[in-house]
Amino acid sequence: MRPLPETPALRPGAAPLTQRSPRVVAARRLQRRRERDETGRFLVEGPQAVREASAHIEELFATPKGVAAHPELTAGATLINDAGLGALAETVNPQGLVAVCRTFDVPLFEALAKRPRLVAVLAEVRDPGNAGTVLRTADAAGAGAVIFAGDAVDPYNGKAVRASAGSLFHVDVVREEDPFHVVKALRDNGFTVLAADGYGSVSLYDAPLSGPTAWLFGTEAHGLPPELADAADARVHVPLHGRAESLNLAAAAAVCLYASARVLSIEERSL
Amino acid sequence: MRPLPETPALRPGAAPLTQRSPRVVAARRLQRRRERDETGRFLVEGPQAVREASAHIEELFATPKGVAAHPELTAGATLINDAGLGALAETVNPQGLVAVCRTFDVPLFEALAKRPRLVAVLAEVRDPGNAGTVLRTADAAGAGAVIFAGDAVDPYNGKAVRASAGSLFHVDVVREEDPFHVVKALRDNGFTVLAADGYGSVSLYDAPLSGPTAWLFGTEAHGLPPELADAADARVHVPLHGRAESLNLAAAAAVCLYASARVLSIEERSL
Repeated sequence: MRPLPETPALRPGAAPLTQRSPRVVAARRLQRRRERDETGRFLVEGPQAVREASAHIEELFATPKGVAAHPELTAGATLINDAGLGALAETVNPQGLVAVCRTFDVPLFEALAKRPRLVAVLAEVRDPGNAGTVLRTADAAGAGAVIFAGDAVDPYNGKAVRASAGSLFHVDVVREEDPFHVVKALRDNGFTVLAADGYGSVSLYDAPLSGPTAWLFGTEAHGLPPELADAADARVHVPLHGRAESLNLAAAAAVCLYASARVLSIEERSL
Repeated sequence: MRPLPETPALRPGAAPLTQRSPRVVAARRLQRRRERDETGRFLVEGPQAVREASAHIEELFATPKGVAAHPELTAGATLINDAGLGALAETVNPQGLVAVCRTFDVPLFEALAKRPRLVAVLAEVRDPGNAGTVLRTADAAGAGAVIFAGDAVDPYNGKAVRASAGSLFHVDVVREEDPFHVVKALRDNGFTVLAADGYGSVSLYDAPLSGPTAWLFGTEAHGLPPELADAADARVHVPLHGRAESLNLAAAAAVCLYASARVLSIEERSL
């Protein structure tokens, strides 16, 4: 993995950095996926995300106002002016803080070795807002790992990070190119693998939700690739009681993951 | 309600309308809420929405390509050129069709007289994407009515219409300024009123889901106003099994509405 470009050390008492400072220019490139992939770094912004990310922060940029408002977060921060912070931030209101973080996804075998009871797999999901929302819901439902499989969105995409509302930092994040390998590994490790599929033959209300469970979710537009859904133990649809033709991805994932969460929490209490 | 401006009748054989034609200029104003409120008209775009909206269409604008691609929808359409359609559309790809529709929300008493088993109330929800998504999920879960209460987003906002994916046309849409009046009317009509509230004292798993049920949902940022949540029969939280601090509105609504849908569908089968 290529390091971030070497940049000059800062002298104490120097003026705040600007959008033209080499360190800021280098950090700004992390808004692009290619730069994130090559350097293993990504950006988070705003006090809540910075707090959640603290174990992974390499450099924190803070405006004087950001330091004043968040003294508990900004020891060791690099001072930056408003225009410099604006250049790094993707939202209108980052409240004076943007951090460069190291990526921290774990290999699939490591995540499975912890024996999570619930796992979510995002197969080819390309919309960062959807991916981040499902990550957040999976965390809430008690999932131990979220696997980004195939040609899926980068979990460190700024919009995905923001939509996850901190959950990116709570679960094991795994990236695997081959979704079939993921399904095989899950089944080899004793998971029941369920494909969320609007056309699936099994109703969610009849689905086998007992024991360690992994849910596969596909894209909003095309769902799961059929061969991948076939590789699961069951293709499961959320019943449609009204006249809607489908649910959106985030809603379907919430219903499926919470159906599992409820069963698994009852099982855990009876252990 | 003020009528749309009078515009000249079209001669057969006239050239397609443009973005400067008075009828197009008048229709374009419907992108603004005030104009929708004053005229009782709104815009839908694309063939799927136009098909769903057919009972409510007052005028359909179609490009020659739109007519060629969708002959089953475009009898009686007003021809418009690409620039004219582009001025009316809010999406990049409306596939040559934009329609002016009459709004069709119904009074609260009329929606309740149909005795729906499930109702969703959006109280002060301001994000149109969220509102449309919850409307879609409510339809899928079998809700008969969705009530926009208080200072909520306009259900005919273009983004809300698109996020509803047709469900705007499937359920009774009600608009009521006073959310307390809505809660009282629901209770007077025998509904159990449940406030979805991350800080609620009752777990969703223990909530009273039997019989006609109405769910109250508030904004993502602030939830429900506390006095409104107190007016419900119970304040219900979705259990958080992991480390997420909350669910987003669309996910929480999906979990709550489907918890009801499941119970109500079992009750219906046993009737």
